[in-house]
Amino acid sequence: MLKPNMHYADLQDSYLFYHIAKKTEAYTKQHVLVQKLYRLGIGDVSLPLCSAVIAALHSAVEDQAKKETFQGYLPECGAPFLREAIAAHYQQRGIAVATDEVFVSSGASDELGDILDLFDKSSKALVIEPAYPAYVDANVIAGREIIHLPASKEDGFTPEPDESLAADIIYICSPNNPTGAVFTKEKLQKWVDYANRRGAVILFDAAYEAFIEDASLPHSIFEIEGARTCAIEICSLSKTAGFTGTRLGYTVIPKELERCGMSLQAMWVRNRTTKTNGVSYIIQRGAAAVFTEEGQRQIQENISVYKQNARVLTAALDKLGIWYCGGKNAPYIWLRCPKGMDSWTFFDYLLEHIQVVGTPGVGFGENGDGYFRFTTFGDPEDTKIAAERLIALLEEKQ
Amino acid sequence: MLKPNMHYADLQDSYLFYHIAKKTEAYTKQHVLVQKLYRLGIGDVSLPLCSAVIAALHSAVEDQAKKETFQGYLPECGAPFLREAIAAHYQQRGIAVATDEVFVSSGASDELGDILDLFDKSSKALVIEPAYPAYVDANVIAGREIIHLPASKEDGFTPEPDESLAADIIYICSPNNPTGAVFTKEKLQKWVDYANRRGAVILFDAAYEAFIEDASLPHSIFEIEGARTCAIEICSLSKTAGFTGTRLGYTVIPKELERCGMSLQAMWVRNRTTKTNGVSYIIQRGAAAVFTEEGQRQIQENISVYKQNARVLTAALDKLGIWYCGGKNAPYIWLRCPKGMDSWTFFDYLLEHIQVVGTPGVGFGENGDGYFRFTTFGDPEDTKIAAERLIALLEEKQ
Repeated sequence: MLKPNMHYADLQDSYLFYHIAKKTEAYTKQHVLVQKLYRLGIGDVSLPLCSAVIAALHSAVEDQAKKETFQGYLPECGAPFLREAIAAHYQQRGIAVATDEVFVSSGASDELGDILDLFDKSSKALVIEPAYPAYVDANVIAGREIIHLPASKEDGFTPEPDESLAADIIYICSPNNPTGAVFTKEKLQKWVDYANRRGAVILFDAAYEAFIEDASLPHSIFEIEGARTCAIEICSLSKTAGFTGTRLGYTVIPKELERCGMSLQAMWVRNRTTKTNGVSYIIQRGAAAVFTEEGQRQIQENISVYKQNARVLTAALDKLGIWYCGGKNAPYIWLRCPKGMDSWTFFDYLLEHIQVVGTPGVGFGENGDGYFRFTTFGDPEDTKIAAERLIALLEEKQ
Repeated sequence: MLKPNMHYADLQDSYLFYHIAKKTEAYTKQHVLVQKLYRLGIGDVSLPLCSAVIAALHSAVEDQAKKETFQGYLPECGAPFLREAIAAHYQQRGIAVATDEVFVSSGASDELGDILDLFDKSSKALVIEPAYPAYVDANVIAGREIIHLPASKEDGFTPEPDESLAADIIYICSPNNPTGAVFTKEKLQKWVDYANRRGAVILFDAAYEAFIEDASLPHSIFEIEGARTCAIEICSLSKTAGFTGTRLGYTVIPKELERCGMSLQAMWVRNRTTKTNGVSYIIQRGAAAVFTEEGQRQIQENISVYKQNARVLTAALDKLGIWYCGGKNAPYIWLRCPKGMDSWTFFDYLLEHIQVVGTPGVGFGENGDGYFRFTTFGDPEDTKIAAERLIALLEEKQ
């Protein structure tokens, strides 16, 4: 009898966003007169792809229509034109990354699941919580021990390593989902030094780096000395360029990263050549347009719209005297639920009274309870109305 | 110290097609006057996407350009429009498959790697050889024991189960890569019965089903009684619709498929919602066009070009009196190397004398030595010239 992977039975309950969807569905069914919900919940973008990307996608579709330009199988690790464009993008920021250290992926969420295949089951995963739920779930599925490191208001939700923690795999997401907190170079240096001392590997989730405004904050773990011997960086165009439904990400694995005499970069080449035939040619062409001058200018225009949303929401929270972090160098705002409400109570309260949908902080870890996440990716007009409703609801009751 | 997945060190040598590429590269460097190679090696298609797919892709790109039609995150298991189209495609052939039993993937090669996550490491994988090398490699990476079942000329390269084999996971590829052999309903029934008796799970690779001509041969494992309690079917548009570089596949997991009280279909939903954000909206729209009446007609036109290639190549082999199988209900032709040559000797011989690149049978398993694979996906003119050169070379020497 085949034994299934019984670790699936260890997964807790179902997925956070599934619950949010069910609750909002139930609400709209019960309230047929409610015409609209103001969605600041799931981190999905609302602006279309920029015109440089659209033009590149159309052109790539045309390539697939003609025999002379038709593209069949591509190299598994990514098309050379895109790997080169991404490496150049790092080099322009003064970070030395070689073309064959860049791997094209279908997105950060896909890669965060797949990359665990590089590690033995015995390795322990450290997750700084609150965190993206899939960090924990993917390791539960693999049967790994998980070390939960709670972040807090006191450490600005960017804790430092604790030498007593026996971590092998370390997840760091900066700018952070869900808290919007950003690790400074000094704090990342402490994590890099800790990882190098222990022989641990940092999985650095840089999906939100494009939202950093403060020039002193690091966009990449490879800005930190010593990171090339201890870190893998996982990036995404989902939020940078609106690729949530178009799907493309990239990963950097330095050649210096070895454990037990094995090169993780070489192992990943072998993984990719065995387990995938790579990402769609059409999508890779669209992604390459993001790294052109025109593409970079256009995506900054979109990002500035989301940043204006952030200013609208943080102004409302400032007015209400609600504690929050994020929103400046990150697309997420993490706030303390008012009046001592727990996360789901506040979720229901906002849905019921002002039809605003956010994300309960407890969905990102137990110590997230009492907190709440807003995203700034919504429609600007909706975000403005949500902010006004928030003020009206909470001023009135205070 | 993080322990890497040491099973990577157990992988044999490097990948078959990598070696072929290196050898042909070395040959062209040494023979600068050779203007052209005739590639019947790697199974890549040569015809562009059909016009129904191109139109759907352009239209989906336009959707991503406008705020009103922009698509962000899609359901992880696949867009409803595509899952429904695929389920309907099964139903039209008289096979009951529910929409939520269909999972959209980035392609069969990706899915064959990912799906192993459903099984415990202790489960033993049975591979009928010669076989697609990734079946073995993906299980080596997972640390699984592999049972090699050699197929042979005597059993028509479609062996029957042997009750002494203690298999938990059973790979069946039909029409087969590399041999082109097709399992009859009777033979598949024996495998299904064996799997149900043992509680094993069949991974049925149906990537080449669209090439079946003989109406009595099964396109799907679910044409076989009892398959819904023991089989997962993995499909691809790569060869059916020329998606090798466009990337899309699909997988069917019946709800009746349970092991140790766990539903593999429910486990896969949980896997997908944890480890992916699904396949690109644009590509899913393109794929849906394949399942329209127009799309089905157009892909048949392309397939008929490849079938004509098969007739050209098999006519040459018939003329030369070389034993082969496949080519009729499959896009692969599997031949016995003439004059007792081993696979790589014949590879070098064809490359050196007539600039034809094929695939050495030994690359698909030890018992493939002495055999050779031609694909029928090449350019028709090239295929014709290759066949003529083959005749000229081997007639002359015989």
